Amino acid sequence: MTFVPHGLHLIAGQRVKSASCFTSDPAEGPGLLICEGTAAEVDAAARAAEDAFAGFGWAPRTVRADLLERIADAIEARAADITAIGTRETGLPAARLDGERGRTTGQLRLFARHIRDGAYLDRRHDPALPGRTPPRPDIRMMQRPIGPVAVFGASNFPLAFSTAGGDTAAALAAGCPVIVKGHPAHPGTAEIVAEAITEAVAAAGLHPGVFSLVQGSTREVGAALVQHPAIRAVGFTGSLGAGRALFDLCARRPEPIPFFGELGSTNPVFVLPAALAARGEAIAQGWAASLTLGAGQFCTNPGIVVLPTGEAGDRFLAAVGKALDGAAPQTMLTAGIAASFRAGRDRVAATAGVRAVLTSVCDRRNATPYVFETTVADWLANHDLGEEVFGPLGLVVRSRGEAETLAFADSLLGQLTATLQMESGDMALARRLLPILERKVGRVLANGFPTGVEVCDAMVHGGPYPASTNFGATSVGTLSIRRFLRPVCYQNLPLPLLPDDLHDY
Amino acid sequence: MTFVPHGLHLIAGQRVKSASCFTSDPAEGPGLLICEGTAAEVDAAARAAEDAFAGFGWAPRTVRADLLERIADAIEARAADITAIGTRETGLPAARLDGERGRTTGQLRLFARHIRDGAYLDRRHDPALPGRTPPRPDIRMMQRPIGPVAVFGASNFPLAFSTAGGDTAAALAAGCPVIVKGHPAHPGTAEIVAEAITEAVAAAGLHPGVFSLVQGSTREVGAALVQHPAIRAVGFTGSLGAGRALFDLCARRPEPIPFFGELGSTNPVFVLPAALAARGEAIAQGWAASLTLGAGQFCTNPGIVVLPTGEAGDRFLAAVGKALDGAAPQTMLTAGIAASFRAGRDRVAATAGVRAVLTSVCDRRNATPYVFETTVADWLANHDLGEEVFGPLGLVVRSRGEAETLAFADSLLGQLTATLQMESGDMALARRLLPILERKVGRVLANGFPTGVEVCDAMVHGGPYPASTNFGATSVGTLSIRRFLRPVCYQNLPLPLLPDDLHDY
Repeated sequence: MTFVPHGLHLIAGQRVKSASCFTSDPAEGPGLLICEGTAAEVDAAARAAEDAFAGFGWAPRTVRADLLERIADAIEARAADITAIGTRETGLPAARLDGERGRTTGQLRLFARHIRDGAYLDRRHDPALPGRTPPRPDIRMMQRPIGPVAVFGASNFPLAFSTAGGDTAAALAAGCPVIVKGHPAHPGTAEIVAEAITEAVAAAGLHPGVFSLVQGSTREVGAALVQHPAIRAVGFTGSLGAGRALFDLCARRPEPIPFFGELGSTNPVFVLPAALAARGEAIAQGWAASLTLGAGQFCTNPGIVVLPTGEAGDRFLAAVGKALDGAAPQTMLTAGIAASFRAGRDRVAATAGVRAVLTSVCDRRNATPYVFETTVADWLANHDLGEEVFGPLGLVVRSRGEAETLAFADSLLGQLTATLQMESGDMALARRLLPILERKVGRVLANGFPTGVEVCDAMVHGGPYPASTNFGATSVGTLSIRRFLRPVCYQNLPLPLLPDDLHDY
Repeated sequence: MTFVPHGLHLIAGQRVKSASCFTSDPAEGPGLLICEGTAAEVDAAARAAEDAFAGFGWAPRTVRADLLERIADAIEARAADITAIGTRETGLPAARLDGERGRTTGQLRLFARHIRDGAYLDRRHDPALPGRTPPRPDIRMMQRPIGPVAVFGASNFPLAFSTAGGDTAAALAAGCPVIVKGHPAHPGTAEIVAEAITEAVAAAGLHPGVFSLVQGSTREVGAALVQHPAIRAVGFTGSLGAGRALFDLCARRPEPIPFFGELGSTNPVFVLPAALAARGEAIAQGWAASLTLGAGQFCTNPGIVVLPTGEAGDRFLAAVGKALDGAAPQTMLTAGIAASFRAGRDRVAATAGVRAVLTSVCDRRNATPYVFETTVADWLANHDLGEEVFGPLGLVVRSRGEAETLAFADSLLGQLTATLQMESGDMALARRLLPILERKVGRVLANGFPTGVEVCDAMVHGGPYPASTNFGATSVGTLSIRRFLRPVCYQNLPLPLLPDDLHDY
């Protein structure tokens, strides 16, 4: 039997109705009637989360690891239904949703292993030195959970960055109850995953306030959530405009809280001369594939290529055009995102010094690829070209040599990634670029493409503003747990009072 | 020959004059004529810092460790002059300044050892898995310096939290150039220490922009500094009002930056019943000493004591009164701080339900101790009693038992510390208090007093707002370096391009 969404909130284990509803706009089929969250539902969820924290935040790590694994199992048990509702709501293909589900359960299990291991506790111990003048007390430190965390589901990853996504996994692993604000573009997907989490919380015998899902399509519900006194931090993946507005609300609170927003990026790719000469066509094909993967709706979509002027560069452009010409339309995540894509395309097309390399026709909720070309000089004169166009749009910036390539790099705002396509003959230029790029990005890569973010210990998915609102944080990988921890130090505490994790440390 | 301040800024190794001056108001002797910084001096210093970062941020760790040790040596070489100008400006006794100098050079040398060791780099490596589907690339991560850092000198620690204090040591250790905004209460002390740093930077052969001191007494110069585009983070120790204003400026920047402000705390001490019975008088004497240490001008000054009602508590109060009665006046750091102390005293005295236990007379720049008493019920009804009074003022909150003590703990705002005075008979209550207190503070201690902050690996000097503006950070101890680092990840980079520190990791 197929899953039929009930459209209610899930607050601390209860299905909760609110006074008004909105109708979702799925890629296929009729809209769903979904409860519209208000400050009242946010308050109920936040109070329950605060209540739950007293137990959950002090529970043994094994309890939390067990919960994460139960959630992964409960998601797998709903695999077919999740893919069915997910494809219907987002227009993403089934294979993508199956893969994303694997990534999601993989993240949950990775965090379970990570907290069982315990290295994330960052424990430190300076033993007493009673003979010193003055005597040194016994001082121990460990990282502790911060309290209830708000997570905003992302439109472009209905599973891996949404209800049971990386932010939720990291926060639960840390010991923080989570309130998810469901993304209105995939409320049914949010609901079925929330049901899985709710089932796992109950099966683990934990306080139901450990997890809530509040549905909603208005700015007010998000604003109420980030301003609620019980909320200690926010995880968000989305647009610069929405993200900055929420960041500002967090900063203006009587007691400000951190807002971990990942707000997008153009992810420049530098095709250096020797690489262009050696394998220009292969790079062009690789770029075309990365640019259009998932209708270009990845945070790490490589929207900008820096390419030498001259014949080899022209051949690269021709190869890109050939690879993308006549590409089939892809359904975008929402009608709003498709409209923004077209508006961004028109803005780029109308910029002085920009020439169309590949045009196509996209309408309604479809996207087809566009490629434009400009020069470093025109780029530098038109600051707006640096703004992300979310979707399969590529801008090729032609550089007349090393000085222009360096000037381009210097001009960049914060990015999630930068990529060097290079051969050994490019090493001198790469060495000059690296210190510039390293300051601008969270991840530098060579001879690959930035889409496909590995979930591992060394991953950094973040970067200077506007790529993220906290350059010290990552939202992917085990290091992302640090966002939801704070150090606490214990001086001369009698052993029975110390947290278990510090007893024999 | 005695040191005579020149009163100029020290910008990237140069003594710089500005158009107007202010006259300082030292505790002893005539005022000094000090250059008044403006946005122009800030801009010159910030540009030099940005320039310096390209080399300094990529220099080997040994180069930075060597610099920190040279600074410590250059400070020691000026020991007598530093104590002479420091005592004259701040009114602190010579022994205190000698001790604080030792703490300052100790911090510098500790950070030198810390970065030589390299554990702070937090290196991670996920090796390539070419046989996996899809193949995993080689991914390495390390913490990198964020760029130029602004440091605000603190009035109450003219050495250890000022020009070459903990923030400066941590930032330089991380690889970040530093611009210090000198505190107008001790500009001569700032200057002589800045001369020591400048000498060390030159002797190490480093870019002079690695360090600048901009003097100033206006809000404008601080505002210009935190808003300068080149500045990547701010370290600040000071009042809630000034700190919040600067925090707001940082959050409102086009590109927001972290503001690491440590804004004060009342550091509650819980005298639990068994401890009161066993050693009430000794605790009373210890508290009296901690409360009045350095005229109560420590961030960790224990301004509030929770004390059981009843005879044993009354005897505690009598012992406090006896210990402090007739205490000699102590010179406060500035006339403004003394005036604020008197205003705070009057505010507490005028609060409903507050009774004076010990009054005294303080005037001009002097402080004498005051002790007031209230009940938990009156505390809960008068939120303002929780506001810090900077100076030797103690408020004793009488509790009628466990429920009131827990309610008091629940009512607390963020604090740097909380202290339990306890015996084994208090364990049950302590176990109930700990989870509450742990959420409110950076450091929990038992059977000691919070003044005297150990500089070590496990120390946390920070806490939830308003104790600090970033509950995830500490401003004392080696963990404080993390404020000035950000993770960067390198994917498939050819070995010659990788930072040296990642080569064999």
